[in-house]
Amino acid sequence: MTEPTRASSADAGGIADQLDAHDLAEGSRRLSGQVRIVGSGLLGTSIGLRLRQHGVDVILDDVSPAARSLAIDYGAGRLPAQGDQPTLVVVAVPPDVTASIVARELQAHPEALVTDVASVKVAPLVELRALGADVSRYIGSHPMAGRERGGAVSARADLFIGRPWVIAGHDDISYRRAAAVEDLALDLGATPIEMTPDEHDAGVALVSHVPQVVASLMATRLAAAPDASLELAGQGVRDVTRIAASDPALWVQILGANASRVVDVLRELRVDLDGVIDALDAPEAPGARRAVAEAIGAGNGGVARLPGKHGSTTQFSSVIVLVDDTPGQLARLLTEIGEIGVNLEDLRLEHSPGAPVGLAEVAIVPDQEQRLVAELERRGWTVAGAFA
Amino acid sequence: MTEPTRASSADAGGIADQLDAHDLAEGSRRLSGQVRIVGSGLLGTSIGLRLRQHGVDVILDDVSPAARSLAIDYGAGRLPAQGDQPTLVVVAVPPDVTASIVARELQAHPEALVTDVASVKVAPLVELRALGADVSRYIGSHPMAGRERGGAVSARADLFIGRPWVIAGHDDISYRRAAAVEDLALDLGATPIEMTPDEHDAGVALVSHVPQVVASLMATRLAAAPDASLELAGQGVRDVTRIAASDPALWVQILGANASRVVDVLRELRVDLDGVIDALDAPEAPGARRAVAEAIGAGNGGVARLPGKHGSTTQFSSVIVLVDDTPGQLARLLTEIGEIGVNLEDLRLEHSPGAPVGLAEVAIVPDQEQRLVAELERRGWTVAGAFA
Repeated sequence: MTEPTRASSADAGGIADQLDAHDLAEGSRRLSGQVRIVGSGLLGTSIGLRLRQHGVDVILDDVSPAARSLAIDYGAGRLPAQGDQPTLVVVAVPPDVTASIVARELQAHPEALVTDVASVKVAPLVELRALGADVSRYIGSHPMAGRERGGAVSARADLFIGRPWVIAGHDDISYRRAAAVEDLALDLGATPIEMTPDEHDAGVALVSHVPQVVASLMATRLAAAPDASLELAGQGVRDVTRIAASDPALWVQILGANASRVVDVLRELRVDLDGVIDALDAPEAPGARRAVAEAIGAGNGGVARLPGKHGSTTQFSSVIVLVDDTPGQLARLLTEIGEIGVNLEDLRLEHSPGAPVGLAEVAIVPDQEQRLVAELERRGWTVAGAFA
Repeated sequence: MTEPTRASSADAGGIADQLDAHDLAEGSRRLSGQVRIVGSGLLGTSIGLRLRQHGVDVILDDVSPAARSLAIDYGAGRLPAQGDQPTLVVVAVPPDVTASIVARELQAHPEALVTDVASVKVAPLVELRALGADVSRYIGSHPMAGRERGGAVSARADLFIGRPWVIAGHDDISYRRAAAVEDLALDLGATPIEMTPDEHDAGVALVSHVPQVVASLMATRLAAAPDASLELAGQGVRDVTRIAASDPALWVQILGANASRVVDVLRELRVDLDGVIDALDAPEAPGARRAVAEAIGAGNGGVARLPGKHGSTTQFSSVIVLVDDTPGQLARLLTEIGEIGVNLEDLRLEHSPGAPVGLAEVAIVPDQEQRLVAELERRGWTVAGAFA
């Protein structure tokens, strides 16, 4: 009853092992030696908190003594001291100062492997090479750990559990040396993914940076809209614009550091946008309907490529169930779905403006749809839709 | 235990009254007289099913006798007969034939009020006037009832419960006459919203049609991406592109029928897109960083205008909790949140690629955040983040 985070599988060394913080004895850690963390924001402090749970000797540093003291107060590490000999240095500072801090750390700790956690990976490596830094001891990484905001106050030892952690290898570092960064990711509960800096930056441009720009541009259109228009807003526009709430100061840095790749994708998108505008400008012209159909159809193909749960691309059926707007109701629905023996693949809630009622959209494998609908209705639930 | 759809509030005539299909006795219906439905797709059949539950005499018609028979088999109404005298005709056919069918029905049933359920409202009215139809008996409407796909097979009597239903009034129809459409919406469990055809079409262009185009354009960029890029996809790009899975054939019609308003918004969006492209093309140029910051910042302002649950714009705190990927776990989490006495405002699930674990993001009012986190951790849950 009180082991919600224990995984059902127990294959040694697998992700399942890393799920329960309480099970992670000191002995199971992979990293050895001192770890020095530079930067005590959300990421740096969270890394320190988790490594301290493993019993690692964590040295915390920050350009701001106040920020450093706060992170130390939270238990994320200790002050630097004479004679410190870190084997791993983690640079967790804003993207625009990452390379210069990495270079400084490489020089200050000539035996240490240095990594960073910035959300772009080409620019720091290029800059380090230009600075003449010893990149045979540098390998960049990028934990895909959600909201990069909040500072030490928001830090959590569990921030990285189950998250992808990109390790961006290059030709000037040996496989053996890079292993410490993989150990770091595993000790933090993350899933290491190896790719080149180029692959990483092109990837995040496409699946993170451009979606951010697109969501912000769409949300901007809502700013001056009449209230009546916004009353019609449904789940679609909410989903498209959700990430538009992101921090401008952070995104200026991220987009600036990956500018050329982001622009490449935005230019391709603009060509398609112009096509749609031209078609809708003369919607009765020959070819106009086909152009619009192809634009929407091409989107079908793109979204189908996104991996689903557990990385699969299985398509699920959706069953939409009416629920009272109380946590008890939703819990009861999920309990009963469990009793019926159908596995819930995903769950989304929709709220109807002005109504004391919500719609729960339950994703399940298609061959269980009929049975689930029949069983829910038998139990008195109102099913408001079922779609393949 | 088995009354999940009963509302807690019971104020007469309110939405709460309409939540439980089982409570709606025949006597509580508002519509009287025969209702004729033309078009037996998802919407037409769903309307018929619900009205039949109210005991309304529903006449079903469709250009396809086979489709009509199927909807009648499902119990959505009966065949037309000599002497039928509908007081209300509901035209539920594709947008491009809506006006001509409405005109035909106005002529065939000179005593009836005629409405349609097409997703644009200006074009049908303009076309009807051009055809010389008697628009003093026509008033357009638009139920905002999710996925407009699936045909009679997917129809549900409960499809409209809690959904907004726009009634697009105009100067040539009297208030008294239009009342039957409001009665229809209420009998179906929907929430009537009055606006002009212009307001409606501008509104749906902004909050439905343009978001569809934007999502499709973004998803199109994923079509040719390397697999490695897609492995980095997180919840952000999933949300931005979710509606890109929509049916191209349907959207050609919707976008074509509202083309000028959609193009107006897309043009404004393109100006902003050009600004971002120019800025990222020369990210070190004077003003470039400010331009990017303003683009992201403007999106902040836009997304904040979207009404939240119950139409409010309250900002919620998010608490992220690690859950095993089983329905029992999530149900237990929600049950415990209920026991703790914190009201769940929203819930989203995130799946980590490759990990047998999910993250549940629970939205709550900010002043309950600390207590919820403390109580959940005391009960053994792993909290992976908490954000205002």
